[in-house]
Amino acid sequence: MSGRLIGVGVGPGDPGLLTLNAIAALNAAEIVAHFAKAGNASNARAIAASHLKPGIEELALHYPVTTEIPRADAAYREAITEFYDAAAATIAARLDAGRVVAVIAEGDPLFYGSYMHIHARLAPRYRTEVIAGVTGMSGCWSSIGTPIAQGDDVFTVLPATLPEFELERRLADADAAVVMKIGRNLPKVRRALDRAGRLDRAIYVERGTMANAQVIKLSDKLDTPAPYFAIVLVPGWEGRP
Amino acid sequence: MSGRLIGVGVGPGDPGLLTLNAIAALNAAEIVAHFAKAGNASNARAIAASHLKPGIEELALHYPVTTEIPRADAAYREAITEFYDAAAATIAARLDAGRVVAVIAEGDPLFYGSYMHIHARLAPRYRTEVIAGVTGMSGCWSSIGTPIAQGDDVFTVLPATLPEFELERRLADADAAVVMKIGRNLPKVRRALDRAGRLDRAIYVERGTMANAQVIKLSDKLDTPAPYFAIVLVPGWEGRP
Repeated sequence: MSGRLIGVGVGPGDPGLLTLNAIAALNAAEIVAHFAKAGNASNARAIAASHLKPGIEELALHYPVTTEIPRADAAYREAITEFYDAAAATIAARLDAGRVVAVIAEGDPLFYGSYMHIHARLAPRYRTEVIAGVTGMSGCWSSIGTPIAQGDDVFTVLPATLPEFELERRLADADAAVVMKIGRNLPKVRRALDRAGRLDRAIYVERGTMANAQVIKLSDKLDTPAPYFAIVLVPGWEGRP
Repeated sequence: MSGRLIGVGVGPGDPGLLTLNAIAALNAAEIVAHFAKAGNASNARAIAASHLKPGIEELALHYPVTTEIPRADAAYREAITEFYDAAAATIAARLDAGRVVAVIAEGDPLFYGSYMHIHARLAPRYRTEVIAGVTGMSGCWSSIGTPIAQGDDVFTVLPATLPEFELERRLADADAAVVMKIGRNLPKVRRALDRAGRLDRAIYVERGTMANAQVIKLSDKLDTPAPYFAIVLVPGWEGRP
């Protein structure tokens, strides 16, 4: 009798945005796995910390690379594929022993989350459940009370890694947008928003729902390096009733 | 001393997807307001029902129109603006009396939710807080265990009310997409997906995280009328590691 895999969304940062289902999964879990950059503590673990059972077995899964190698590079792809294969095998060994393994994930597990790479490898073979979570972007626009999209708005999520002309074209083509993975791409994102005629309404958010959040109009933000997980919100909602 | 307004996301349908913050807000609330189509019970209320304090004052806010008049019609706009003005005034009277009013909203309050129309009218004048919720779309892709977007995917939310050529163009231009407000637009959405080369991966979901959910490949779904809140998921995630 094999075990059970649970992908658990723990939300954007505020532990109060954990769901009842997420807490129940952490109670049911015999092993909790979490991803982090090598040398760093897991953000998901920090969010869920008060709900981990004392002495529970933890699997810390450390990315071999994050932003050091471009994603399109074969070396990145090889390293990361090997990493996900090994992580899935480690978890599968626990499932084969009949254990319940929760993989905790910031935000929503199947929306730009690393959990999906484990899911794709193991869901065909094991009992699997996914618990939706509040996304990082929802946490950001809620914490600043900014409606993002309504009615018949077209809403788009864009990685800041896109070429500048692509960012500009897509920002001009959407009613509302979120730009993720800002990091070193801030000057490019600013130029694209300006040429798309959207800079005036763009809001820069760092550490969304955390106590030390930074929120500023993008037009007032200096072009100093931004954290990788900073995002830019471009609210839609023209012609509101 | 005026009261406090709280916009409370109650998630996509499963009461287990309520957050701890949402439950705390329902405990703090002295009045709970919810939107519904006239003659219908509120979905948000049904989701949150077990957390409403016995005997708490409720404000049922009934839309004067929903899909009977096109949104672009001046008559729709006039009726709905008057409705939101009156609803905001009703809530403001409670806030002026120093009460704590929670407006509960399906999914996430500031993501295509009616709450934002109350928020825009009252947030400049009253203490206001918004509690992010799990969106309906996250509930849908999680319940069927389908990763929606990863890495550098461009993700787009489209209303099915868009003209067919616009749907086709935008579906072809995104890596991953969600089409909302399916209702009578199902044949149009199918044709647009087909011509965009995305029909094969499109999944039709009705009543997402509810017990009576219906999930079917869109290519297998008949062109019979679909509920307004049915959605179509178009997973991205090509070239996964």
